[in-house]
Amino acid sequence: MITVLSGGVGAARLLRALSGEIDPGEITAVVNVGDDLVLHGLTICPDLDTITYTLAGLNNDQLGWGLAGETWRVMDELAELEGASWFRLGDRDLATHLYRSQRLSEGATKTDVARELCQRWGVRVSLLPVTDDEIATVFDTEIGALSFQEYFVRHRHDVVVRGITVQGVAESSPTIEVLRALEESSRIVIAPSNPLISIDPILQVPGVREILHARRDDVVAVSPLINGAALKGPADRLLVELGHEATCVGVADFYHEVMGTFIIDEVDAHHAAQIESRGVNVRVTTAIMAAPDDARRLARAVLA
Amino acid sequence: MITVLSGGVGAARLLRALSGEIDPGEITAVVNVGDDLVLHGLTICPDLDTITYTLAGLNNDQLGWGLAGETWRVMDELAELEGASWFRLGDRDLATHLYRSQRLSEGATKTDVARELCQRWGVRVSLLPVTDDEIATVFDTEIGALSFQEYFVRHRHDVVVRGITVQGVAESSPTIEVLRALEESSRIVIAPSNPLISIDPILQVPGVREILHARRDDVVAVSPLINGAALKGPADRLLVELGHEATCVGVADFYHEVMGTFIIDEVDAHHAAQIESRGVNVRVTTAIMAAPDDARRLARAVLA
Repeated sequence: MITVLSGGVGAARLLRALSGEIDPGEITAVVNVGDDLVLHGLTICPDLDTITYTLAGLNNDQLGWGLAGETWRVMDELAELEGASWFRLGDRDLATHLYRSQRLSEGATKTDVARELCQRWGVRVSLLPVTDDEIATVFDTEIGALSFQEYFVRHRHDVVVRGITVQGVAESSPTIEVLRALEESSRIVIAPSNPLISIDPILQVPGVREILHARRDDVVAVSPLINGAALKGPADRLLVELGHEATCVGVADFYHEVMGTFIIDEVDAHHAAQIESRGVNVRVTTAIMAAPDDARRLARAVLA
Repeated sequence: MITVLSGGVGAARLLRALSGEIDPGEITAVVNVGDDLVLHGLTICPDLDTITYTLAGLNNDQLGWGLAGETWRVMDELAELEGASWFRLGDRDLATHLYRSQRLSEGATKTDVARELCQRWGVRVSLLPVTDDEIATVFDTEIGALSFQEYFVRHRHDVVVRGITVQGVAESSPTIEVLRALEESSRIVIAPSNPLISIDPILQVPGVREILHARRDDVVAVSPLINGAALKGPADRLLVELGHEATCVGVADFYHEVMGTFIIDEVDAHHAAQIESRGVNVRVTTAIMAAPDDARRLARAVLA
């Protein structure tokens, strides 16, 4: 069994690639919920949904997010009402949020809902929100405090960030399922998600970092930076703004206490010695998953 | 200025007919919110929405509820997820509920939201929820306690009712706008809505019944029963189940302390003397609003 600490798109692609190499029933994803939001009364879990849709083969490849075959009737009507329509929720996608919100109001947990949605769509990877408590990643920016999605979607991550805090995380607990997965997996993988805003909120949930630290030799991380750039999102920019080096070396420094092995792209091979000097094993392969063959090669490197 | 105590469909039709006779800006509707519900995380106000849609000319005449040109993508997807889909929410209609829920979460009141939606759709009648506090009509039935919409929609009002209570109503307050409308109108109208489940929850909000009682001579009610039958809904059946007479006389007995004039249909003219013996003036006209001419005649009788 392997467990993958996961954000959204990058993690979803790695999980899909891993599912092609081993039985998906042997894979658990521990998923960030720091970017969850309540909008229009609906509880929305973007990372969980992105992974679920991708593993169900329902993801929208054109948009890069959301569901295939999506329609936008509700959003169009909401825009007519001059309602908040900056966070685009398609009609199919809305059904997910209505389902989750109703189940939560009936006393279900996010863990329950993730399991139910996976069952409906035939997803066999176990998706576990890292916690069922409410945590919220907040950005201290040049224009004031912003919630995750205000920063990421509304302002298209194009404002200067001075700091990031995860509200509620100190009082949160990992679920029992998460603790069991982290303790019983033969390998723990850190997906090529944003270290600061996807992975760090998971590590901050009390107990998680400690388990990874203790099991450091079994932890393999995949670099989200290739030649100093993120394939998607603001990881490179945020690393610089928050005083880190925007290269795979900077990411290695960020993770070195909790990982034993770091997988970097071939173009970054010249950084290997520097990373190994931090006491981290390095594997060099293709860390881009655009082509199926490359995704397969990366998955095999993660499992090797 | 006139003020109309209002439930859903019957009140909406009367308000539309009244709007054809006098300036809609002179009409205020005080609307029941005892049948409001929170479903899928969304706050839904069926009576307010029915009236708004009808006065905006957007109501769905085929269904008898909801919006014209409606589509059902979200509900179809929700049914695929085996989510709660017994309360049908169309895609256009959902935009209303998303708008309201978001505004409420931002600190707006139901009164604010009703005003905003009316502005967007050019509705000039003032729609006032009777209270901005939460109240909930609950049915004690042969199969246990049911919320309003569980009783009305899920079970199609086809279970025996032993009692009706309005939770929270004793601690609720009418809004200042409602009090002003009731005190300053030249006439107060009780729409031909269900007396027990649409009008009574309004009367139970502390202060409302007292104002009507004091202004009894200015209060005109329209009978919702014609020849002992409700045109729509379970008013006749509920009157019997709860020990009232299922005729316009039974309704007159229910209202006689708060109304000075009762408008009944021609087919019920033979009840006039019996009702007048309760100290209530009776006007006889067509109380059915199916044909535009009849609706106009009823509106004129209400205004006479």
